[in-house]
Amino acid sequence: MAVITNVVTHDIRFPTSLSLDGSDAMNPDPDYSAAYVVIETDAADGLEGHSFVFTIGRGNDVEVAAINALRDHILGLDIDELLSDMGAASALLNHDSQLRWLGPEKGVMHMAIGAVVNALWDLRAKRAGEPLWLHLSKLTPEEIVSIVDFRYLTDAITPDEALQILRAAEPGREERIQNLLDSGYPGYTTTPGWLGYSDEKLARLCKEAVADGFGQIKLKVGADLDDDIRRMRVARASVPAGFPIAIDANQRWDVADAIEWVQALAEFEPAWVEEPTSPDDILAHAAIARGIAPIRVATGEHVQNRIVFKQMLQAGSLSVMQIDAARVGGVNENIANLLLAAKFGVPVCPHAGGVGLCEAVQHLSMFDYVAVSGEMEGRMIEFVDHLHEHFITPTVIRDGQYIAPTTPGAGTEMLSTSIEEFTWRGQPASA
Amino acid sequence: MAVITNVVTHDIRFPTSLSLDGSDAMNPDPDYSAAYVVIETDAADGLEGHSFVFTIGRGNDVEVAAINALRDHILGLDIDELLSDMGAASALLNHDSQLRWLGPEKGVMHMAIGAVVNALWDLRAKRAGEPLWLHLSKLTPEEIVSIVDFRYLTDAITPDEALQILRAAEPGREERIQNLLDSGYPGYTTTPGWLGYSDEKLARLCKEAVADGFGQIKLKVGADLDDDIRRMRVARASVPAGFPIAIDANQRWDVADAIEWVQALAEFEPAWVEEPTSPDDILAHAAIARGIAPIRVATGEHVQNRIVFKQMLQAGSLSVMQIDAARVGGVNENIANLLLAAKFGVPVCPHAGGVGLCEAVQHLSMFDYVAVSGEMEGRMIEFVDHLHEHFITPTVIRDGQYIAPTTPGAGTEMLSTSIEEFTWRGQPASA
Repeated sequence: MAVITNVVTHDIRFPTSLSLDGSDAMNPDPDYSAAYVVIETDAADGLEGHSFVFTIGRGNDVEVAAINALRDHILGLDIDELLSDMGAASALLNHDSQLRWLGPEKGVMHMAIGAVVNALWDLRAKRAGEPLWLHLSKLTPEEIVSIVDFRYLTDAITPDEALQILRAAEPGREERIQNLLDSGYPGYTTTPGWLGYSDEKLARLCKEAVADGFGQIKLKVGADLDDDIRRMRVARASVPAGFPIAIDANQRWDVADAIEWVQALAEFEPAWVEEPTSPDDILAHAAIARGIAPIRVATGEHVQNRIVFKQMLQAGSLSVMQIDAARVGGVNENIANLLLAAKFGVPVCPHAGGVGLCEAVQHLSMFDYVAVSGEMEGRMIEFVDHLHEHFITPTVIRDGQYIAPTTPGAGTEMLSTSIEEFTWRGQPASA
Repeated sequence: MAVITNVVTHDIRFPTSLSLDGSDAMNPDPDYSAAYVVIETDAADGLEGHSFVFTIGRGNDVEVAAINALRDHILGLDIDELLSDMGAASALLNHDSQLRWLGPEKGVMHMAIGAVVNALWDLRAKRAGEPLWLHLSKLTPEEIVSIVDFRYLTDAITPDEALQILRAAEPGREERIQNLLDSGYPGYTTTPGWLGYSDEKLARLCKEAVADGFGQIKLKVGADLDDDIRRMRVARASVPAGFPIAIDANQRWDVADAIEWVQALAEFEPAWVEEPTSPDDILAHAAIARGIAPIRVATGEHVQNRIVFKQMLQAGSLSVMQIDAARVGGVNENIANLLLAAKFGVPVCPHAGGVGLCEAVQHLSMFDYVAVSGEMEGRMIEFVDHLHEHFITPTVIRDGQYIAPTTPGAGTEMLSTSIEEFTWRGQPASA
């Protein structure tokens, strides 16, 4: 019998604010960071589970404290038993009645639980010798349903309905796995569109994005309307006619502002409008969606849990669901989100970027394609060309496609040298 | 010029799980705790601002870490300037773009911000030599509006509409202040209804509650329907005909369960059904409200912020709004909540109990009565007879009424001896 012998945390921060990479209307100077966790066991294989919460700097220490608060929940547990029932493993953390008070199921504590759950999935996939997407894609519909916490979901989707969706996607799984291995999964890029960039840099990066084979670009908007009009004009002039350009307001607006602002940009035919308002505001998203139709609303990177996604689908708040690998309670809750999206027929186009989010979330989109929605049409994963070099298995993009990872694990393990170099010591590491 | 010289935190935990005080269907064994903060200055008056986040045990250390993460935001600031514009003081914390990633405006980080904001209000009221409720009640409508962050609210209430509500309540302020000083504010009690109590204890405590002059009692439900039916029967037999008995499910149900369970208890005429489902589920609350009408839905102790309250009012999710003094971003955000309730004509009956929540929230209800809703009809503050002895100015209840505090401050300062005795040292203090 092997047990969990240690849960190690690291406060890792990259000084990205120095270059304005990642600048948007709400986040002018992020320092991309990771509250990082390593789960160690005494198994002979020597394998570890690695994962993290992504933050943008200050407060990364609070996430580390939250992960440390979970240490005693899993230390000493039989790792075979724990990994054999990941639904129970997640419940062990999410259903702690005292910790639940700090959410429930939202914010700092929930993200920390997500990191620990994801580290367990990383370890499980490594032990299976499979990349996480493939490991998940080989589960039976019954096994997948057992991973999901259906509490607060049954007015929208029951376990039986989930089973039906998963069984309907069973035919063709092998073919879709082969498709992924052959051709990968579509990506789109946000690299050109950060607010801090000059028009010249924007134009150059737009052209490069098209040349690199991406199927869509995205621009940050919402700080100043005249600037946004000018930048959209620059971007439109830099890409072929009809090329999709999404816009992202990062929660800047109230309802009336959102509708007015987006209508002022409508001539540039945005592919979608992302995060027009508060991620908590289901009804405002729905009102905005009605107000700007047929332009689509996309949201999700800050959606706190499956319960809010459920309501957004019920209320017609979004047309594109943007799950995030490190915001909710881990792989388990994201499988609930994928099932909800499939039930409502909404495409999932994950949020990525930051630190390691591309590495992590690609596994979920690929699993969705193989075993849940069975679809790739209208779906793509965000790509931002930052900080990949710090990961053991960095995302590989070719002709705008995410190449399916084949290395065992969840893709969330950083290089030990990067962990060492960028560990926070009270001031930024040298840029 | 006086500046903030220190921000001191304490991890305080009471071993309440040993007596099953506070036991309910979701929280079987809480250890009532406070992540406590003291703001010190170098002013000659020697006054300090005290406040806390209430938690139920494990994770209290995470809240302490979150408060500590705010330390550098206020250390060294000019205290006169900071306290003179509490809207700006709150924004200083809530609008930190990096910390915002950890919410936004929800969970651990938001509660920590609320504690710091409330400690500033405690200090401000002490410096004014007034209890907080009276201090707030003397502000002009314009000053009150300046305290509120209207971001994400303007589709329901604008600053101008808030001004109208506050101006309409200006006549009669003095008379209502005198009413409070003369007669206090109605309370109701949850003391009889904890799940862990025997039927005999329940019956005895129900009779005592009526004899003590409380206008309503509340029973925890949701663990077992047969038990609930039996306990409601015991409670009904222990009080006069027609005496209001509310029930509280503490988030146990999905929509269909909630409607079925409440209908099975309908014969006992519950005064309201509290927290029937997830506090995040605006649409489920609305569906339940429709399904159990005319029985009323009450909720709010776990509602994360004003944005969710706004939607619950827009969607008809609740008929009774239960603000909590230590869940949202402090006094500022609770004033937003009071204004929303006034706009929608919904009574506010605050959640209290725990550690110091009665002491804190009475100030908000009294301010609401004087300066916002101008109403007391149909309103009351929860009362639980636990842990008051640890506060400098404990809540005083007489004939079921909260007696208006007259001591300067927000009521949130604990005795230094209690802080010392119940500081967490890795195991429970002796009971």
